[in-house]
Amino acid sequence: MKIKSLFFFLILTTVFYAQQQPVLLLSDSDIENIKRHLDDVTLLDNSFQELKQTADYALTNPIDVPLPVDNGGGYTHAKHKQNYRDMYAAAVLWRLTDNVAYSKFVEEMLLKYAAMYPKLPIHPYAPKNQFAGKLFWQSLNDYVWVVHSIQAYDLVKENIAPKNRKAIERDVFRSMAKFISESEGGLKMFNMIHNHGTWALAAVGMTGYVLHDNDMVERALYGSAKDKKTGFLKQLDALFSPDGYYSEGAYYERYALQPFMLFAQAIENNQPELRIFQYRNGLLGKAVTTMFQMTDDVGRIIPFNDALKEKDITSEELIAAADIAYKNYKDNTLLPIIKKQGVVTLTSAGFAAAMAAENYNKPYDRVSKIISDGPNGTSGGLALMRDSVNKVSLIFKYSSQGMNHGHFDRLGIQLYHKGHEILPDYGAVRFINIEAKGGGKYIKENETYAHQSIAHSTLIIDETSHYNGDWHKGEEHSPEQIFADIDKDNIEIISARDTAAYTGVRMQRTVALIKGENPFIIDIFDVKADTPHQYDLNYRYNGQVMETNFKYNYQTDLKPLGSTFGYEYLWKVAEGKVADSFSQLTWLNNETFYTINTLTDSNSELIFTKVGANDTEFNLRNEDGFLLREKNATDKTFVSIIEPHGSFDAVPELVENSHSAVKTLKLLYHDKDYTIVSVSFSYGKTYTLAFANSKQAGSSQHRVNIAGDTITWKGNYTFIEK
Amino acid sequence: MKIKSLFFFLILTTVFYAQQQPVLLLSDSDIENIKRHLDDVTLLDNSFQELKQTADYALTNPIDVPLPVDNGGGYTHAKHKQNYRDMYAAAVLWRLTDNVAYSKFVEEMLLKYAAMYPKLPIHPYAPKNQFAGKLFWQSLNDYVWVVHSIQAYDLVKENIAPKNRKAIERDVFRSMAKFISESEGGLKMFNMIHNHGTWALAAVGMTGYVLHDNDMVERALYGSAKDKKTGFLKQLDALFSPDGYYSEGAYYERYALQPFMLFAQAIENNQPELRIFQYRNGLLGKAVTTMFQMTDDVGRIIPFNDALKEKDITSEELIAAADIAYKNYKDNTLLPIIKKQGVVTLTSAGFAAAMAAENYNKPYDRVSKIISDGPNGTSGGLALMRDSVNKVSLIFKYSSQGMNHGHFDRLGIQLYHKGHEILPDYGAVRFINIEAKGGGKYIKENETYAHQSIAHSTLIIDETSHYNGDWHKGEEHSPEQIFADIDKDNIEIISARDTAAYTGVRMQRTVALIKGENPFIIDIFDVKADTPHQYDLNYRYNGQVMETNFKYNYQTDLKPLGSTFGYEYLWKVAEGKVADSFSQLTWLNNETFYTINTLTDSNSELIFTKVGANDTEFNLRNEDGFLLREKNATDKTFVSIIEPHGSFDAVPELVENSHSAVKTLKLLYHDKDYTIVSVSFSYGKTYTLAFANSKQAGSSQHRVNIAGDTITWKGNYTFIEK
Repeated sequence: MKIKSLFFFLILTTVFYAQQQPVLLLSDSDIENIKRHLDDVTLLDNSFQELKQTADYALTNPIDVPLPVDNGGGYTHAKHKQNYRDMYAAAVLWRLTDNVAYSKFVEEMLLKYAAMYPKLPIHPYAPKNQFAGKLFWQSLNDYVWVVHSIQAYDLVKENIAPKNRKAIERDVFRSMAKFISESEGGLKMFNMIHNHGTWALAAVGMTGYVLHDNDMVERALYGSAKDKKTGFLKQLDALFSPDGYYSEGAYYERYALQPFMLFAQAIENNQPELRIFQYRNGLLGKAVTTMFQMTDDVGRIIPFNDALKEKDITSEELIAAADIAYKNYKDNTLLPIIKKQGVVTLTSAGFAAAMAAENYNKPYDRVSKIISDGPNGTSGGLALMRDSVNKVSLIFKYSSQGMNHGHFDRLGIQLYHKGHEILPDYGAVRFINIEAKGGGKYIKENETYAHQSIAHSTLIIDETSHYNGDWHKGEEHSPEQIFADIDKDNIEIISARDTAAYTGVRMQRTVALIKGENPFIIDIFDVKADTPHQYDLNYRYNGQVMETNFKYNYQTDLKPLGSTFGYEYLWKVAEGKVADSFSQLTWLNNETFYTINTLTDSNSELIFTKVGANDTEFNLRNEDGFLLREKNATDKTFVSIIEPHGSFDAVPELVENSHSAVKTLKLLYHDKDYTIVSVSFSYGKTYTLAFANSKQAGSSQHRVNIAGDTITWKGNYTFIEK
Repeated sequence: MKIKSLFFFLILTTVFYAQQQPVLLLSDSDIENIKRHLDDVTLLDNSFQELKQTADYALTNPIDVPLPVDNGGGYTHAKHKQNYRDMYAAAVLWRLTDNVAYSKFVEEMLLKYAAMYPKLPIHPYAPKNQFAGKLFWQSLNDYVWVVHSIQAYDLVKENIAPKNRKAIERDVFRSMAKFISESEGGLKMFNMIHNHGTWALAAVGMTGYVLHDNDMVERALYGSAKDKKTGFLKQLDALFSPDGYYSEGAYYERYALQPFMLFAQAIENNQPELRIFQYRNGLLGKAVTTMFQMTDDVGRIIPFNDALKEKDITSEELIAAADIAYKNYKDNTLLPIIKKQGVVTLTSAGFAAAMAAENYNKPYDRVSKIISDGPNGTSGGLALMRDSVNKVSLIFKYSSQGMNHGHFDRLGIQLYHKGHEILPDYGAVRFINIEAKGGGKYIKENETYAHQSIAHSTLIIDETSHYNGDWHKGEEHSPEQIFADIDKDNIEIISARDTAAYTGVRMQRTVALIKGENPFIIDIFDVKADTPHQYDLNYRYNGQVMETNFKYNYQTDLKPLGSTFGYEYLWKVAEGKVADSFSQLTWLNNETFYTINTLTDSNSELIFTKVGANDTEFNLRNEDGFLLREKNATDKTFVSIIEPHGSFDAVPELVENSHSAVKTLKLLYHDKDYTIVSVSFSYGKTYTLAFANSKQAGSSQHRVNIAGDTITWKGNYTFIEK
């Protein structure tokens, strides 16, 4: 095409097909706004350059829409994924540059999909227990394909001749929507209260808006029967707690927020009367805020339940979520996150976010927070306790199961310090899209090790996981918060109880973060049972062992610690008996020392473990654990102090306080009503924590006499510093 | 003291005691220069603020000069170390601010040392095999104390009344110099050709200049007998190769350079006629340049021999070295290093370095380099082969033993990529100044594991270390370079031979770094023996195993791999027999995949190892190894291709080329004269490397017929790319 005829073509195109405003996420007026500010707003420019690079690279290569034959990580899988990214990038570029080559690219690619899709069978790598896709092995990827591609089509539609539009709409989008929402397996997933369902609803609902098909939209909003028993609104009711906690946990909240927020913005633009962003007291805003709070000091998502540790606040799925939340709630605390993400979506929401972030320079503030779980906020929760001055974060999990991605880690803790994992969660066992590792999907060991209780810093009874490792059973119950207080300057504390993870056993864990010059953790794990059991209190620690105050036998041959519930993956590296009234393990992590000080007696066994036994495919990281074992016990109160101390700087060769500062540790009092512990440090301080074991009114008075001394308090607990 | 009398005192001080220019490192004129530029030269300001913080903090606390009773890491050890830092900082501050409080602080502290030192016995933690100190457990720390404190005294001397000067000079500096250079153990160390000796010489020589004691200076320069058989000049002759390689290796070169450079600058300032910086063709300059080249892409010192991995180009000892080298050689390539260090010494040299670095913005260039070892450059060496575009560094070690800090790693390799250790060296086993770990000294496992051959990526025969693990024997021989070429665009290659590490065995390793779009390593380890042996070619790899092309048995119980020479610290994790003509192990390190492809046959055993067996004190890091074992072999040629490939980015979930690209690997020809290997890749390239096994003149012609094909070349090798 010569320049002159190209020009003529452009005129024609504009005259005949234009005049149609995109309906999903980017308005005509914001297209003009973005163009005007590309040069002077950093986030807009970065985002534009990134999309332009993607689109321009795509345009230099032949379009390939291959017959889907490969598993996750294989060529056709990667190609179809890249195709929707390329189409989206090109579609945005068309709007921002008016260069018709970009819209032509999208049109041509969609025509190729139109030629292929209607004849496609179910994908050859169809998974066994799950609805298969046609473009990809799992239908989830097909939904994601639609959510991206329909946005691209929405932006270029005005520039496509009616005949081609008709083919694309019929053979790609209507055909896919039918497969997704009306085929047998599709319908089931479409109505499922689950993140896959959310993607399916968003795909169909967004398609409905673009094709002006009210039936699609209504089914997406209210479920296939339009009875509101399923559908988007029902998902908002069922999958989130009133605090915006998503039932599967932080990692899947990241993933689910993308379809939730994209579809919500499309609803807001097309049916503002639904006031979707005000739904459940602004639930979607709370969901985004809560999501970002569930990150560590360097922005990684706290990896409880199935979670890969590489994901952080810059993950692609969270970019749209942050932009849309900002546009609709004008919450300035999101702006540091948006700046850290470095790009925005080039949408109306992204424009609003970029403009606001440009000159916003406050840091992001991670706060202490009690987050309820369950649709009514009554299914336990998650406590984020934080000493922001010292950069200590103590995470306490007493939430519900979290469906099939949930782990059996009731009353589990994680500890972070200075951005490092000190008592880490293993996370998930998976290598995304690495074919050699189970085709890039979850690997067997994810269920057989990572899900199990022993993979967490919690209590395991009789070498059996919570709920006998059955997640369906785990769904039926959740721990109960007994008391919590995160508003004091010197202490943050929570106590929760579980009576369902093991039959006939009551577990209660009370953890406190003591803030100040020398922060430390008090950890009291109380367990009561009718019959004798073996109690294993597991601490997964991260770092190099420095010293212990007890003797142990380092094993000359390594054998697995057990045979089931994840124990078969642990080498028993060493075991010790106890020398003193309390036992100490000190390790070094980066430039700080840490000690677990724990009350022990002559019955206590101390076991060092390392992940790796039976790991025949080398799928696991060889991480370390420290296990306190009590055999034949009925009632037992584990009392531990976890203490960061000193510093190690190898460059100038400076070391300070490499030994624990704990001098004494005592369980001063424990009966069915009260627990009192005290700890003293070599720097001269003594702290006493006293609490009532059960829920108390704030006004209730308590008095306990111990060794001539009387401790009195009101409400649930008192913390005394001397 | 009131303001008025303080003023009067200042006048008096100036009148009576001033007029004496410091003689060591900071001239009066440079004091004025530094003062003038503190505000406008970043490095000077940074350095001033840092010293000021140290000095001001010291001045707010009571002076403590405790009786030395503690081991490394203990209070008195740390305190005496801090004291010399504090004195030095305060002395510089006195000169730069004219605030007499700083010089008073130094004077008072030195008087306390004068009161204590003459009566001190040998340190209670005297080491068994080494000359003990009085202030510290090892005399080395005493030398370091003097090197710093004499600089402080040199700066404040003018401001101390004659009576106090006399006490300080007699009871501190002369008394210590006598202990260091004239006591029985001291004299031996003073004359030893070793880094401890260097510190001793610098301490005494610098003291000699300040006290105007020619005898001390002459003994330091020419040895206690002044016969030049020992002393500073002899050390320069014996401890460095003509390329500036220090015999103990890079890590100890870092440490030794401080006394070498400080004393050299003092010599230059006081006896310029010795032209010390021109000695041996400017050896000291080469030493500094070579030192900085022996670092990885992020500036860490390459950790062969005893070495801690935390040390990098910003280590304190290298700051003075860089400044002094810059001042005396005006080598601009040092300026990016100096900028990265972030501070300079506040000396005449530091002033020159800071002024030059201020507006210098070129990056530091790590180059390919063959570094000779031995006083005459004939004791083997070290090859640094680099693809700087792809950030690949291949290190080949064929140097001499390196005295008691040397490792038995003849013909060992290390591989770096993108700043990460891919085939790492274990380094040393030590936790600096952490009492719980052997008092912060080297731990037993440093000799029993880290020194041993199995701790390295090299060949181990009959489960016995090179030279039977006897470093004195190792001192007698070194490998011989057969040929090397690091000047081509597409290949860097070296071949070296060892005939002394094992009696009756000739080992020759030829390694090449192939540069370009897809860089890779060719590694040919040829071994010939008169009688049958077990050959273990060990690769220490760093990362997570992804896949193998051979079957292996993962051990259900772990047992140590052997019982001596470091084998007792390795768990045998898995062992395999060979499926194919070549075996592949692929692992993931950060965002890249790596594969070792190695020729194997039905006799080959492939063993996975992990450090940790018999590590009863948890002193070792649990790193991984891949061992190729041939039993009952006499002549054997191991041929391996080590290949970085593909990428893994978990955030956008993108994976490329996770499988090895090697299609075929062949030893095409091997006899006593020639070796020819060829490798082909799935991306369509085939490479052939042919070389003569022995030294060749550049003009020598070679011709080999293989399967109808003829390969001809001139000189040592040819490399053919198709």
